Amino acid sequence: MVAVPQEMTLIGHGAGGGPEVLAPQRGPVPTPQADDVLIRCMAIGVNRPDVAQRSGSYPPPPGASQVIGLECAGEVVAVGAEVRRWKVGDRVTALTNGGAYAEYCTAPETQALPWPKGYDAIQAAALPETYFTVYANLFGHGRLAAGETVLIHGGTSGIGVTAIQLAKAFGASVIATAGSDDKVAACRELGADIGVNYRDQDFVEAVKQATGGKGVDVVLDMVGAPYFARNLRCLRLDGRLVMIAFLNGHVAESVDLRPIMVKRLTVTGSTMRPRTTKEKAAIAAALEAKVWPLLEGGKCGPRIFRTFPLAEAAEAHRLMESSAHIGKIMLTVG
Amino acid sequence: MVAVPQEMTLIGHGAGGGPEVLAPQRGPVPTPQADDVLIRCMAIGVNRPDVAQRSGSYPPPPGASQVIGLECAGEVVAVGAEVRRWKVGDRVTALTNGGAYAEYCTAPETQALPWPKGYDAIQAAALPETYFTVYANLFGHGRLAAGETVLIHGGTSGIGVTAIQLAKAFGASVIATAGSDDKVAACRELGADIGVNYRDQDFVEAVKQATGGKGVDVVLDMVGAPYFARNLRCLRLDGRLVMIAFLNGHVAESVDLRPIMVKRLTVTGSTMRPRTTKEKAAIAAALEAKVWPLLEGGKCGPRIFRTFPLAEAAEAHRLMESSAHIGKIMLTVG
Repeated sequence: MVAVPQEMTLIGHGAGGGPEVLAPQRGPVPTPQADDVLIRCMAIGVNRPDVAQRSGSYPPPPGASQVIGLECAGEVVAVGAEVRRWKVGDRVTALTNGGAYAEYCTAPETQALPWPKGYDAIQAAALPETYFTVYANLFGHGRLAAGETVLIHGGTSGIGVTAIQLAKAFGASVIATAGSDDKVAACRELGADIGVNYRDQDFVEAVKQATGGKGVDVVLDMVGAPYFARNLRCLRLDGRLVMIAFLNGHVAESVDLRPIMVKRLTVTGSTMRPRTTKEKAAIAAALEAKVWPLLEGGKCGPRIFRTFPLAEAAEAHRLMESSAHIGKIMLTVG
Repeated sequence: MVAVPQEMTLIGHGAGGGPEVLAPQRGPVPTPQADDVLIRCMAIGVNRPDVAQRSGSYPPPPGASQVIGLECAGEVVAVGAEVRRWKVGDRVTALTNGGAYAEYCTAPETQALPWPKGYDAIQAAALPETYFTVYANLFGHGRLAAGETVLIHGGTSGIGVTAIQLAKAFGASVIATAGSDDKVAACRELGADIGVNYRDQDFVEAVKQATGGKGVDVVLDMVGAPYFARNLRCLRLDGRLVMIAFLNGHVAESVDLRPIMVKRLTVTGSTMRPRTTKEKAAIAAALEAKVWPLLEGGKCGPRIFRTFPLAEAAEAHRLMESSAHIGKIMLTVG
């Protein structure tokens, strides 16, 4: 048995605001529900939705922890009555429903996966949010297939890094955009066939040149409204635009809808958090079957940019909001 | 053998313009290509794209006949060297690649289907354009399934009549919009569970009431920009919007893209004419297997509003542009 305390340190965010609202405080260790595992967090991933939740614009869904944090890796220290797969002492990395910025966090057991062989806690904790999101959107909603070409915006974000690697691992060609020459070089190192510095070059033109005027099969976008019409222009016949965030706005002005009909496009998107436990379990099962072997074989893997102690979550958020990072920003406990 | 003349009467449209440009003229009987049948037209369907082509805003694709007309029924009078299924004397109804406003018209043999048992030429000629379009968009792009609910705009148009009937025949619930109480009554007669007069009632509110606030699974739209945001509001989680025309405009102002991501919507659409022969053949095969038995069993069928002699095509177009019709407008030969 592992001794689980009653109280723990967690990162609170008060009534919301800038990074400075993030501060350690004491609170109760959460109690696992029947199908939950309780994890002693060793490492925690920082994600864009955490920033939105902190600032108050993205409240957690009903029933979820008020504490920020969507992924963690660590050791199972307690299990709910109906948990079948995991036992105390197992090392897991989990897509949580919130609450990961803390010493202990619960997650449905079906959202927990084993650490890939050879991974440490930080590497393992860097996986769930981007791998669940990219896998569901690129291959599910976007139906990206081997031999196709995908345009990936934000190529050096956590999502972008994973998207470039997974698209390449599954046989697609990749055009990635980023905001500096260093970031473009990083996209190329990660496997992108073509990197586009969007500050210097029109990505629509770059896509045209790279595809002999045909366009790409899939666009993965998190920029939103300012890119919408241009994304449609980048797509070829039967192309798919998958929107997973609106970092630069969500209201597009004067949208010409004709390309959607004439090119038979699919415009779609999704968010991960509101999905049901069953939906998340299905994505987890697909990841374990199809992607974990690639991680263990070194075909893809997280790129860790910087690690902060849990208590310095505010610094981690400042870095994310600066967009100076390439890859994942992580928190560690103990 | 059937004697095929060198010359025929066809409807020309000069340099384009209003309905008055449509006038009979003499021209050569077309020569079937290797995989074409030559049909002596007995009846011809009038469709919205014909109006656009006549006015000059929708030129025929490269290689297609300059003569207007996308569907006809009649008798096969000649076949190309590679035609396998049809022989001279067979009665067919065909989705043409243009050229149907004439005494003779060619079509790839895979786009010709037999007259459903008990059908006459006018009924048979009323099928291809709306059945190909509705089948491909509602069940293909829109993935409408039994037990789901669909919102069909323009419920009394040729497309609308077919969409209401096919959706019901395949086990979906139907909400249809139309612009008068008479048209709403016609939608209900055709099988719509709910008819909405869009001049009196906000269809978004009507959908909410009819679905307990949940929204519909699929929207089939041909109105375009003015309906875009409202169509998104009508859709439930994982809903699909399929756009097949933009009768009231194609540039949508201030489009909030968030519902597409948050509700995981699919926004898509298509046109029939630019599809490849292979794609049209696949739709034809599905129609013959799954829909022709329904037509022959009386589960669905065309609703003919009015029939004009071929020489009065201008009158037929005036009627279509008045939108006073409910169902199909047809031309007859001889």
